Amino acid sequence: MRYDIAIIGTGPAGLSAAINATIRNKKVILFGNEDLSQKLIKAPSIDNYLGFYEISGTDLKDKFKKHIEEMNIEITTNKVNNIYAMGDYFALMSGDNMYEANSVILATGVEYGKPIKGEEEYLGKGVGYCATCDAPLYRDKKVAIIGYNHEAEEDANFLSEIASKTYFIPMHKKEVNLNDSVEIIKDYPVEISGDILVNKLKLRNNEIDVDGVFVMKDSASPKALVPGIETEGVHIKVNLNMETNIPGCYACGDCVGKPYQYLKAAGQGQVAALNAVAYLDKKKLENRK
Amino acid sequence: MRYDIAIIGTGPAGLSAAINATIRNKKVILFGNEDLSQKLIKAPSIDNYLGFYEISGTDLKDKFKKHIEEMNIEITTNKVNNIYAMGDYFALMSGDNMYEANSVILATGVEYGKPIKGEEEYLGKGVGYCATCDAPLYRDKKVAIIGYNHEAEEDANFLSEIASKTYFIPMHKKEVNLNDSVEIIKDYPVEISGDILVNKLKLRNNEIDVDGVFVMKDSASPKALVPGIETEGVHIKVNLNMETNIPGCYACGDCVGKPYQYLKAAGQGQVAALNAVAYLDKKKLENRK
Repeated sequence: MRYDIAIIGTGPAGLSAAINATIRNKKVILFGNEDLSQKLIKAPSIDNYLGFYEISGTDLKDKFKKHIEEMNIEITTNKVNNIYAMGDYFALMSGDNMYEANSVILATGVEYGKPIKGEEEYLGKGVGYCATCDAPLYRDKKVAIIGYNHEAEEDANFLSEIASKTYFIPMHKKEVNLNDSVEIIKDYPVEISGDILVNKLKLRNNEIDVDGVFVMKDSASPKALVPGIETEGVHIKVNLNMETNIPGCYACGDCVGKPYQYLKAAGQGQVAALNAVAYLDKKKLENRK
Repeated sequence: MRYDIAIIGTGPAGLSAAINATIRNKKVILFGNEDLSQKLIKAPSIDNYLGFYEISGTDLKDKFKKHIEEMNIEITTNKVNNIYAMGDYFALMSGDNMYEANSVILATGVEYGKPIKGEEEYLGKGVGYCATCDAPLYRDKKVAIIGYNHEAEEDANFLSEIASKTYFIPMHKKEVNLNDSVEIIKDYPVEISGDILVNKLKLRNNEIDVDGVFVMKDSASPKALVPGIETEGVHIKVNLNMETNIPGCYACGDCVGKPYQYLKAAGQGQVAALNAVAYLDKKKLENRK
């Protein structure tokens, strides 16, 4: 089963891309959250989304939700960890699952924050974003989980049964639910270092020997998500057609730059979708010749 | 009296620019029509403006109208004939009147030259300008594309997969690249006719029964409006910030390129306004030094 378009993100950019691609009869898979967007839900009052005056974030979220439901667009809540451009199509990895799509629209927002020193350098050399995917590599080894969310705890528990030692560094103040064998370190990560492979995680007040470090955030940096994608600072580089440097891969919304605005994101999602549709139609015509 | 921002056009791009600039406390003058946009009003049903599902053009127009009225934004109906960049400000000529503004946002749409007989009368009743937008209305129906450019061929190919019959009337002598199922008629359109909806296209030497006619035309240069502005074909050249080549002059919506879509236009209007605001604020700070 290969989709025409895989869309990552259920903020206004991703939703707008999904409705536009669906109207154009494309087979779409939309990855995201049932709640659509935390940022949107938490907005007290929105004045500048043309057509809605003084609407609350939750009300606007409900309007968006209704729109996609009317069009029978479903949300796949599996988290996409990596997207690989395979030449003719894209492979989207989600835990043990793989999805295939002929084109991709990234609408991942900007919640990924600044990477830890050494994080990008050691990506794939001891640094990872999917503990359960990479767990077999760490049998009887020492790993640290830097946990921003609750999924991180599940991953830590899973790893603790395979690794010889599992550290957990919580990045929030909520209660954590962990196996006894997981050692919690309440500190702040400063640097990931090593030789060819990772061997150390420096914290503000501590230093631990590790073979692997997993950074468990809600969204990964674009380069971690899509190897080879061109960025400018924290943003994905696009042109006016929302094309990235990878043919068939589009991006829109906050992840491509400021202003961080709902209407701008929705407009860009539409542009991304319509250009993805044109790309697919052109490819189809070429294959026919 | 000098305005902070003069906005030309009351389609979604201009309106969105106006609300965003007003929220940022800028003194705005908005030129356009009380009816906002003929193109919008005549749209039978709009599915792809995120937040509104299956809304008619007039209903969406009313939502937009209400939005600007709630914010006390007025429309100046005088037609702007020329805009001159005077270095430090812009002079906008309207008949014998002159307006001054520190920045300008062009949201003038795309004009469609001289219409075919019946074209305006049946606009939204079988006549359209965006075949891919309206394609779902013509499933298993007969359509004709009057094609002035190469994009028209792409639209014809797209429609041919949905419509029961697709005719293509080339308005140029270049080679066309069409699916086998598209029937090419080398003739000249004379009149679009029908009852309540279109049912016939009269050509010089022929007459065909159709349910829809798409006029795919590029036209009118913005260079006439703003001397010195850089264009690409019929469109104003902008970057991702909606900046034109003239400092302080922004453009957004259909006049900067395809896709011709309400949501895309509104999103770009927001980007144009927020960048114009940043431009004005920066200039103000510089002048203070």
